[in-house]
Amino acid sequence: MAKLMGKAVIAQGGGPTAVINQSLAGVIFQVQRHNHISELYGAIHGVRGIIEENFIDLGRISSRNIEDVAVTPGAALGSTRDKPDQEYCQKIFEVFKKHDIRYFFYIGGNDSADTCRIVNEQSNIHNYDLRVFHIPKTIDNDLLVTDHTPGYPSAAKFVTQAFTGVNLDNRSIPGVYIGVVMGRHAGFLTAAAGLAKKYSEDGPHLIYLPEKPFSIDRFLKDVEKVLSDQGRCVIAVSEGIVDEQGNPMMVKLQERVEHDSHGNVQLSGTGMLGDALKDLIKEKLKVKRVRGDTFGYLQRSFLGCTSQVDTWEAREIAEYAVNISSSIEADGSITMHRTGDYSIQYQLTSLTEVAKKTKSMPDQYIDTENSFITTQFVNYLKPLVGELPNWAKLSAPKINVQY
Amino acid sequence: MAKLMGKAVIAQGGGPTAVINQSLAGVIFQVQRHNHISELYGAIHGVRGIIEENFIDLGRISSRNIEDVAVTPGAALGSTRDKPDQEYCQKIFEVFKKHDIRYFFYIGGNDSADTCRIVNEQSNIHNYDLRVFHIPKTIDNDLLVTDHTPGYPSAAKFVTQAFTGVNLDNRSIPGVYIGVVMGRHAGFLTAAAGLAKKYSEDGPHLIYLPEKPFSIDRFLKDVEKVLSDQGRCVIAVSEGIVDEQGNPMMVKLQERVEHDSHGNVQLSGTGMLGDALKDLIKEKLKVKRVRGDTFGYLQRSFLGCTSQVDTWEAREIAEYAVNISSSIEADGSITMHRTGDYSIQYQLTSLTEVAKKTKSMPDQYIDTENSFITTQFVNYLKPLVGELPNWAKLSAPKINVQY
Repeated sequence: MAKLMGKAVIAQGGGPTAVINQSLAGVIFQVQRHNHISELYGAIHGVRGIIEENFIDLGRISSRNIEDVAVTPGAALGSTRDKPDQEYCQKIFEVFKKHDIRYFFYIGGNDSADTCRIVNEQSNIHNYDLRVFHIPKTIDNDLLVTDHTPGYPSAAKFVTQAFTGVNLDNRSIPGVYIGVVMGRHAGFLTAAAGLAKKYSEDGPHLIYLPEKPFSIDRFLKDVEKVLSDQGRCVIAVSEGIVDEQGNPMMVKLQERVEHDSHGNVQLSGTGMLGDALKDLIKEKLKVKRVRGDTFGYLQRSFLGCTSQVDTWEAREIAEYAVNISSSIEADGSITMHRTGDYSIQYQLTSLTEVAKKTKSMPDQYIDTENSFITTQFVNYLKPLVGELPNWAKLSAPKINVQY
Repeated sequence: MAKLMGKAVIAQGGGPTAVINQSLAGVIFQVQRHNHISELYGAIHGVRGIIEENFIDLGRISSRNIEDVAVTPGAALGSTRDKPDQEYCQKIFEVFKKHDIRYFFYIGGNDSADTCRIVNEQSNIHNYDLRVFHIPKTIDNDLLVTDHTPGYPSAAKFVTQAFTGVNLDNRSIPGVYIGVVMGRHAGFLTAAAGLAKKYSEDGPHLIYLPEKPFSIDRFLKDVEKVLSDQGRCVIAVSEGIVDEQGNPMMVKLQERVEHDSHGNVQLSGTGMLGDALKDLIKEKLKVKRVRGDTFGYLQRSFLGCTSQVDTWEAREIAEYAVNISSSIEADGSITMHRTGDYSIQYQLTSLTEVAKKTKSMPDQYIDTENSFITTQFVNYLKPLVGELPNWAKLSAPKINVQY
């Protein structure tokens, strides 16, 4: 049969990453290399821009602008937290029909994949020929099937460089330091702190992930031990740590709790958890100097801290989506598969395998004490983060004062 | 008279910076270019290392190690929060006498300058020939006489890149964002957020500094106005903002307050202020999406974010200190003076002019509304921060849906 010709819409959804615009650039450029897409519409603020018919013409931007936008953090098209239901997706479909849109590229996480899935269902129900492609991005790295998600390596690099620095700062003026890292259900980003450990005495000394139950007693014992061994303690904690019953520690340690538009407890953009753990250590362990930072939005938006591998993969995965759209009659999410050490192959995976599902850190990446990561995880992460800035400790003999 | 020959001690005091070890490297290398210093002792953990006679031999480290340490954040010798009194300085002096130390180089802020001053007094009282040199560093940029202090430009660059990113993130998903920046009495570091503003609609939209009284009513009115103009608001707040009576807002907004070893209220290493301002906006302005981050220790320790100018100046100011020590019979603090746009000349300034004194942001750097910075400040800061990573917004025409 003849190749499906028509217009395409691209949108960005969910929390932005440092390389999300590389994927945008990838689609814009690759569309030009094919002839099946006549016009490329950019939807402003994700799916909301679609139902509001708020589009820009991405066929009319300069190459320079595309490359400058590609290295810019944050969603250049604007993003949204809207999570479309059947009715919302019906509206999206109607707009697509009205504009004779035949291709939909949605850069986002597992919620965005679900939107793709529902819109795809609508087009099938109405026998409207539409191709839907989910281009993954998320700093949480919590999507199924794929080896990792674009955006994660750069955020992981930020977390690694942050903990390298705070470990050296804490070494200069010893005490307890707690760094709270993003990641509601998956500990991948928090675990990246482990890459900051060069020598055995380096921090982070303890890493707590949402995959394993967090016990206050155990936590205090762990900190006490590191303090007696090292005279200081650097701790990486995921914002999403939960107790034995699965209740967020944030809720347990603090009364005040907010919910975001998805009905999730708001864990980011607040220093609550870090302060609560800090107070706990001061109170129970009687440590004088305890500091807590919540890395917050810098992790996903900081200008000038990206992984080279991530930069290329975020563009390549989008180019692959356009190529696939021109060659085979299918919809899906583009997944990444590690082949050799290190290379990646891209594949098209059914939307239902990715939509709304969440991947956690596998057990072999978490040490048996549940308070650190394994070498296997370090081996998984290193090629994604790539080269890190150099640093060293002074190496000079002590002066013997007994002469 | 014959040049004073003898051993030297170098130490690092106060909060570390990203380039504090460039100054250490500068002294180590420059001492080799002169013959008046026979041995260079490194004191571990600042003045504490001196009274404990905990020294390392800095004449015995490799060139590679020095260069690797130079690019490493945190005080490589270890730092201290000890603030020596007369008795403490007497002990320091006794150790110097015991080891026949004739030169003391102390890398630190205005408290360290005061330590230099007292130790210097001691040596004069006892007619002991000792040269004391204060090599400035502080991310707060709050030292008198000098144009700026090593460490500040790199921290300012971090703050600029952080606010560039959060502005773009906030633009993707609009709401109110508050970033709390370090700076107890001086607003220089918080003011650096202003450098992130490229287009008039960019954040930060509001900047609050400790130099001007902070009014909650005025703050809420400012935020309300930006919200109605821009539909979003990015705010930079100094951790040290005070009310009309000079009480820290942190204290006013929160009961729980800690003190550090200098008897100062602890403002860093806690998310309190950001959360309090966030809750204030949610409650009074009924804004749904409000986020607050406290940048904390990343500002002074993040690996891989330094200003090139800062890197060179931190080394050069230390080299100048060693040169001066070999040529003239005087003690003092090395100050930096801007000559032309942009170049720096170094000078020796009396310790009493720098010790314990604090510089604030001059009025011409703060706009008349007390809620932003002036172009004069931007012109002051730009050459210090140097080149910043590139970024851009999408530039494409809207699609006219009425065809």
